[in-house]
Amino acid sequence: MQQLETLVSTATQFVEAGGARFAYRRLGPETGIPLVLLQHFRGTMDNWDPAVIDALAADRPVIVFDNLGIGRSSGTTPSSVQDMARDALKFVLALELPRIDLLGFSLGGMVAQQLLFDRPESVRRAILVGTGGPGAAGMFAPEVVMAATRVPPDAESLLFLFFHPTVTSQSAGKSYLLRMLARIEREPSTTAETIQAHLAAIRAWGELNGDAFARLRRIEHPTLVVNGTHDIMIPAFNSYALSQQLPNAQLILYANAGHGSLFQYPEWFVQDALRFLGSD
Amino acid sequence: MQQLETLVSTATQFVEAGGARFAYRRLGPETGIPLVLLQHFRGTMDNWDPAVIDALAADRPVIVFDNLGIGRSSGTTPSSVQDMARDALKFVLALELPRIDLLGFSLGGMVAQQLLFDRPESVRRAILVGTGGPGAAGMFAPEVVMAATRVPPDAESLLFLFFHPTVTSQSAGKSYLLRMLARIEREPSTTAETIQAHLAAIRAWGELNGDAFARLRRIEHPTLVVNGTHDIMIPAFNSYALSQQLPNAQLILYANAGHGSLFQYPEWFVQDALRFLGSD
Repeated sequence: MQQLETLVSTATQFVEAGGARFAYRRLGPETGIPLVLLQHFRGTMDNWDPAVIDALAADRPVIVFDNLGIGRSSGTTPSSVQDMARDALKFVLALELPRIDLLGFSLGGMVAQQLLFDRPESVRRAILVGTGGPGAAGMFAPEVVMAATRVPPDAESLLFLFFHPTVTSQSAGKSYLLRMLARIEREPSTTAETIQAHLAAIRAWGELNGDAFARLRRIEHPTLVVNGTHDIMIPAFNSYALSQQLPNAQLILYANAGHGSLFQYPEWFVQDALRFLGSD
Repeated sequence: MQQLETLVSTATQFVEAGGARFAYRRLGPETGIPLVLLQHFRGTMDNWDPAVIDALAADRPVIVFDNLGIGRSSGTTPSSVQDMARDALKFVLALELPRIDLLGFSLGGMVAQQLLFDRPESVRRAILVGTGGPGAAGMFAPEVVMAATRVPPDAESLLFLFFHPTVTSQSAGKSYLLRMLARIEREPSTTAETIQAHLAAIRAWGELNGDAFARLRRIEHPTLVVNGTHDIMIPAFNSYALSQQLPNAQLILYANAGHGSLFQYPEWFVQDALRFLGSD
């Protein structure tokens, strides 16, 4: 009997693309449209929740990776969402994936939207978690930036940023941290340079004008927009706005949850994501 | 083997309470906290979707009824949500139900909120579909009122009011109509008097001020707020606003759907409702 793979122990692989090297991990079945995950501000692929990834991979191929300038991927992190999407596409093409599903979280959700703009034919369905459209409002208040840029990152800041200040949410946050930290062979921490590039990219995305937001109307892909009702990093209003602008979007705001809603409700999120991905 | 009960064929029952008579139907197991449903503007209990009710009743007791002045229930329909909630409570007490779950749709969702204000101890959890809080915005535009008050009601108006103008949504709407019209022994149509009272109640609810909206913050019950992304009767923004004001609310906006989202996605809605009701 094959041992069940898990994000905690699966080996990191590498792929070259035009002089660049991408670090990635692949789980789940060999065949089927892979779900490619795009990570949040400052995160490496170690920041995904094994409870979420392993359960998704029980159903379909799942690929997590570090974009350029992150972890053991080569290069430097560009300071725009557009360039991050270009790099992500390089990775997808290097793996020779003709068509993918996307799950973008936070900054990764912006990169996912950009990929939908730039390469609609390469994406089947997209899940946009804890993110906002071009021109997103109320992102990254000063106290959030302070907590989010702390070096080294600490558990307290992450619990503040990703979870709601209730006993239930904070306790779910601690469980997520334990799961997320279980892997031993970890990627190197994100550099100060990458953190600054990520911040610049998020700020520039938030300053895009209404025309850029209106482009969302042209995305015909089925999308699932997810957030916590009380996200202090990218307020849930942005998720609501996405659901109104994207022509074919479902919205879920999980109760009593913040930015890291998918890690607070791993079972529900996986149920909802798989139902969405499997519904044709 | 017991024959499976269905809303299409189950007998209507009656209960007396202080000189008033309520018509109702009960499905599902004998024991467990019953889910009591509160109907929309102008609807009788015949307007529920058997696909939704029967599937809910496979898991838990479900009770649909006609409030005073509707169908074969006695009396006249009051012209305020507050009085409708008072009458609904009479019905619940007449059935000697110490604690219930609520599912309120549209006007019924307003009555459900009022019950949560007035009798918090009698309700365990509430599902609020296609509805808005006190002071809800953008409800019942002129073309909506015209279609909604047509006598006799016609299929075209209902498809316009409850479903999105896409092939998928309209087709789901027609399937709902077929299911909903399958019952032979039907309640009498809602009178012009009741329609006017319902309209007055909805208008008064929409004119409540911010203090009334702020009362939602005191509702500690777990709530599930549901709508379609494109509801033309009670815009989905009101559902988003409920999810931000209620302290413990999950929000779901189904894609490519309008006011009747629960009838467009009967299977998904039942999955989501049962998961919510069963989650302690």
